[in-house]
Amino acid sequence: MTTAKKPLVGVLMGSDSDLPVMEGAFEVLRKFGVPFEAAILSAHRTPEQAAQYAATAAERGLQVIIAAAGWAAHLAGVLASKTILPVIGVPVDSSPLHGMDALLSTVQMPPGIPVATMAIGQGGARNAALFAVQILALCHDDLTKALKRYRADMAAEVLAKNAKVDASVRVEGL
Amino acid sequence: MTTAKKPLVGVLMGSDSDLPVMEGAFEVLRKFGVPFEAAILSAHRTPEQAAQYAATAAERGLQVIIAAAGWAAHLAGVLASKTILPVIGVPVDSSPLHGMDALLSTVQMPPGIPVATMAIGQGGARNAALFAVQILALCHDDLTKALKRYRADMAAEVLAKNAKVDASVRVEGL
Amino acid sequence: MTTAKKPLVGVLMGSDSDLPVMEGAFEVLRKFGVPFEAAILSAHRTPEQAAQYAATAAERGLQVIIAAAGWAAHLAGVLASKTILPVIGVPVDSSPLHGMDALLSTVQMPPGIPVATMAIGQGGARNAALFAVQILALCHDDLTKALKRYRADMAAEVLAKNAKVDASVRVEGL
Amino acid sequence: MTTAKKPLVGVLMGSDSDLPVMEGAFEVLRKFGVPFEAAILSAHRTPEQAAQYAATAAERGLQVIIAAAGWAAHLAGVLASKTILPVIGVPVDSSPLHGMDALLSTVQMPPGIPVATMAIGQGGARNAALFAVQILALCHDDLTKALKRYRADMAAEVLAKNAKVDASVRVEGL
Amino acid sequence: MTTAKKPLVGVLMGSDSDLPVMEGAFEVLRKFGVPFEAAILSAHRTPEQAAQYAATAAERGLQVIIAAAGWAAHLAGVLASKTILPVIGVPVDSSPLHGMDALLSTVQMPPGIPVATMAIGQGGARNAALFAVQILALCHDDLTKALKRYRADMAAEVLAKNAKVDASVRVEGL
Amino acid sequence: MTTAKKPLVGVLMGSDSDLPVMEGAFEVLRKFGVPFEAAILSAHRTPEQAAQYAATAAERGLQVIIAAAGWAAHLAGVLASKTILPVIGVPVDSSPLHGMDALLSTVQMPPGIPVATMAIGQGGARNAALFAVQILALCHDDLTKALKRYRADMAAEVLAKNAKVDASVRVEGL
Amino acid sequence: MTTAKKPLVGVLMGSDSDLPVMEGAFEVLRKFGVPFEAAILSAHRTPEQAAQYAATAAERGLQVIIAAAGWAAHLAGVLASKTILPVIGVPVDSSPLHGMDALLSTVQMPPGIPVATMAIGQGGARNAALFAVQILALCHDDLTKALKRYRADMAAEVLAKNAKVDASVRVEGL
Amino acid sequence: MTTAKKPLVGVLMGSDSDLPVMEGAFEVLRKFGVPFEAAILSAHRTPEQAAQYAATAAERGLQVIIAAAGWAAHLAGVLASKTILPVIGVPVDSSPLHGMDALLSTVQMPPGIPVATMAIGQGGARNAALFAVQILALCHDDLTKALKRYRADMAAEVLAKNAKVDASVRVEGL
Repeated sequence: MTTAKKPLVGVLMGSDSDLPVMEGAFEVLRKFGVPFEAAILSAHRTPEQAAQYAATAAERGLQVIIAAAGWAAHLAGVLASKTILPVIGVPVDSSPLHGMDALLSTVQMPPGIPVATMAIGQGGARNAALFAVQILALCHDDLTKALKRYRADMAAEVLAKNAKVDASVRVEGL
Repeated sequence: MTTAKKPLVGVLMGSDSDLPVMEGAFEVLRKFGVPFEAAILSAHRTPEQAAQYAATAAERGLQVIIAAAGWAAHLAGVLASKTILPVIGVPVDSSPLHGMDALLSTVQMPPGIPVATMAIGQGGARNAALFAVQILALCHDDLTKALKRYRADMAAEVLAKNAKVDASVRVEGL
Repeated sequence: MTTAKKPLVGVLMGSDSDLPVMEGAFEVLRKFGVPFEAAILSAHRTPEQAAQYAATAAERGLQVIIAAAGWAAHLAGVLASKTILPVIGVPVDSSPLHGMDALLSTVQMPPGIPVATMAIGQGGARNAALFAVQILALCHDDLTKALKRYRADMAAEVLAKNAKVDASVRVEGL
Repeated sequence: MTTAKKPLVGVLMGSDSDLPVMEGAFEVLRKFGVPFEAAILSAHRTPEQAAQYAATAAERGLQVIIAAAGWAAHLAGVLASKTILPVIGVPVDSSPLHGMDALLSTVQMPPGIPVATMAIGQGGARNAALFAVQILALCHDDLTKALKRYRADMAAEVLAKNAKVDASVRVEGL
Repeated sequence: MTTAKKPLVGVLMGSDSDLPVMEGAFEVLRKFGVPFEAAILSAHRTPEQAAQYAATAAERGLQVIIAAAGWAAHLAGVLASKTILPVIGVPVDSSPLHGMDALLSTVQMPPGIPVATMAIGQGGARNAALFAVQILALCHDDLTKALKRYRADMAAEVLAKNAKVDASVRVEGL
Repeated sequence: MTTAKKPLVGVLMGSDSDLPVMEGAFEVLRKFGVPFEAAILSAHRTPEQAAQYAATAAERGLQVIIAAAGWAAHLAGVLASKTILPVIGVPVDSSPLHGMDALLSTVQMPPGIPVATMAIGQGGARNAALFAVQILALCHDDLTKALKRYRADMAAEVLAKNAKVDASVRVEGL
Repeated sequence: MTTAKKPLVGVLMGSDSDLPVMEGAFEVLRKFGVPFEAAILSAHRTPEQAAQYAATAAERGLQVIIAAAGWAAHLAGVLASKTILPVIGVPVDSSPLHGMDALLSTVQMPPGIPVATMAIGQGGARNAALFAVQILALCHDDLTKALKRYRADMAAEVLAKNAKVDASVRVEGL
Repeated sequence: MTTAKKPLVGVLMGSDSDLPVMEGAFEVLRKFGVPFEAAILSAHRTPEQAAQYAATAAERGLQVIIAAAGWAAHLAGVLASKTILPVIGVPVDSSPLHGMDALLSTVQMPPGIPVATMAIGQGGARNAALFAVQILALCHDDLTKALKRYRADMAAEVLAKNAKVDASVRVEGL
């Protein structure tokens, strides 16, 4: 997949304040060598452009859309209504309600137009990218291998921490 | 206003299951003689028609839009993004979360595109229509008078109940 | 509307601690040249003055009232009960519950006396002013034009950010 | 206290639909022989009468006010703002949010005007009356005695149930 | 009441970390010249002493008990179960749930044993003391007068702020 | 363990309305042959008896206490404060808040006095009994064996259902 | 795709009580002619079988897994941890908390192992199947066409209802 | 118990970021001289190792397992499904939802596999260790004595603070 140039994943944010939240998603996509594009388009302030983005996404070669938004987060749902590509939603915790509003606005889609919702905030951003890679891996064997390595690395990282913790806690205790 | 024929208020519902919830809104509009139209358009299943409805609402003579939806209720926000007419949102309690999802999806609009949100369910439906009448009354003196009568009647109704309650409770008590 | 001197919008706050939250509302009203007045009146500590304010608002020439309050935010509802002018409520997040108490106290008005509720906090403050302008625009053509410009500017601002984001993210990625 | 004729406690409800919820309060007040009056007055639909009720409550001889309301329950707070008599609030679960809105609207009073809030619904209604009796008992020795008897009876009732339960469960179990 | 020496109000806290939260309550009681005592007793860590405190409160001359606690705040309920004096509960926001746990643990008392619950945190602390004064004022005319002055002062303070706000906002706006 | 006569587990309920909720707990204890006793004692209406029950539980031979209560469920915490036996709490959903109040009142115990909290309602009741058995199994080998059988039976039951489901769904589908 | 025999989608439920909730998912999969299999496996009662199911899913030819569970719904997360196939989670509202527990347990996955979460209950079930079809459509052109038809049919259904509603409401109104 | 070397309690954390939260648990276990081991194992990133840990815990001599995790906290439930040892869960508040997600994911276990859930965060960590000690004390008389001393010390600490508070508050007041 390393030679691919045309974006396969489109990452949309409702506001440029969502950019740092989504950094983890970019990092994951870069790590897997998945070509992507990033855009800032608001469901409410630029409804035509957001609709247009989704409506033309498939013909432009995108295979997955990731949409991040806070408050009454309509972006993912609005995009999903204009494309049959899989749309993954990331609720951002930018409001006083800590993202509960964004979560419910994203996940509680009525029947007919699904949005695949991830956890609130940075963790969800990273997982959105991983889920996009998991979808793409269905047709890209190299991504399947890379995902398995990624999981093995994650496990190894946890086990490395585990190897140290017991000694540290016991030493401290005695 | 009784001779008016062209609708001044558009009442949109995201699903025909919202129809009974909105009956109170229709009742109020009829009572005040405000011409209105009703439509069922989904922000997600019929995005073009919903956008089109809002985009052409002003030129068709509408002055206020009422939008009712449940779950991740994007309808009011999506309409509001396509018109500068006042949009009033009614969160419907059709999901297992009792309308908390619809409330947050409707009220927590990010800055730039306001939705005037009413209470969840039938009470909110009735109030949405009353609020539409209050807006229209700014330019229609007969509606101002009618609203004052309506409020006086409401007060009288409460006071009539009040006149009976003390006796009934005391009698029951002795 | 630039020559208007008499306030058309009254902005009430339940406490002077709500003043910074409402700054965005003042900014919007000034931008649109809508004359307004600001007041600090508490539904509970100055009930007579608050009631009096609402009861005389229409005859003093006000056309819309915006009310901001935190905690058990009764201000908007109390004002709405004394006037048939449209009342817009802004829940302020000044309590440990992050404004959920203010939101429910403002939006869940029982049938008969509507309050048009906006989002919690600064975003809601800005939207309250915009919604007031949208109401006033029904009778003021220059405000209609100004609102369309405002929306176009907002869209342009988003699109300008959008024009930069992709490059920045990709550069960072490669 | 049995010879008292003038009401000492005023029980206000925001709607006649709150009447069955408050039946337990009436029952408790009757049981303790505390003279009371009941009224239906809405903070929003009859604001003058509600304010007037509270403003004249002390001079009419009332010593405690109980206020029950649902939705954005402003009644107790509005009354409390017009009297220095103790006001006890009962949140009623008449909305889709199961009384969470009424609870927060009643209990989260900002500093200066307290409302003594009870549990949501029928349990809270009964406790509101008991709390009124506990306040009155500070100056009425016979109420002190009656309250102690009431508590003893409650305990006895629990213990009577306790005396039976173990046998029933074990018998069933073998 | 200024010559009174024996405490009329007992202020209990479940932990010394609640002390700063309750400072407002002490301030109010001092301002009204109401003699009070403060104690730190935990419903769970010192159950006997807490029970004993409540059981002997009336005979020691106390007339009202204020109880502040965070987390699963059982203190007010546990005290209320051992005395027929009015018990006022203040939920403290010391847990990650921002006091929602303390609020529900305090206010949702089952029928039979009421706790008069105030708002979460410092506002509730101040109101608890005011509510205690309002109860005591039923038998103390000087407290009635002092409460009326206190309310007039509060109103004057709001009105003084109100007198300044409009000018400041308009100046800033032009 | 079948010959044991003296109760090892005490099941307390705050009200006889909790009895049907706890039926699953009795059933589990009977199934494992664990001798138990059931009692109805209220933390608030019979505080002495509840405290006494817990204080004497260990010397009477009990090893685990299960406490079920609804609303502001203080029972488990109050018992735990009087014994060092493990106390397991079952929040009962008897209030309008569906047990969220009982859950937070039971689980959010401040440091020092733990309550082992189970899920809300009947599922939690059943699990409370199973957890009691798991504790007892630490010293009773026959219970260890019985628990392993119980788990194997549960798994077998799920697998039996699993064996049928696919066919049924596919048949229905074709 | 009609000739495909080997299941491409695996639908797992944590309990047979989730079967009626998932009926909509089966219906959608049948409508699109997507071969699927259904299983009842519990993350907690049959952990080995659930883990095994996920671990062998890819080699058995599955491309997407749908997992439905209520309460502390761990099923989707547990499956996702054992496969790199896309896992879609459906929170079921079988607990007193109306599925809020299942929603948070499913959607709030920590970074590394994503679960694509749908709305609570039947709406979410239907959308889970549609989302699975949208994923499969990336490699199956006939599904792309079928999805476009499905969307067009949905829109037509809404528009057919819309065509009737205005007349019915107006007739009723006059 | 001071001579014991083999761990009786296993403390698992889903991430090394949970380590500071669990420090209180280690402190309690050290104070009581209960040998323990600490491990970092993720239910999702190291599912095999986590399952293996629980499956072999009993034969390795562990008697109680404590599991701490944030977000959709599956760790305790996953461990509990693989052992019949008592598993105690500590929800960690590491997500934007302040631990409400971790609490519900931990406590709302479906019937069959109980997890003994403690309060969110550091208080819950400390209580988890105390609860483990209370379980172990059923077979270890020295722990029973130590627990009684611990409780007496806690009470003494509260009473020492209590002895000072009244003077300090009164001095400050006069």
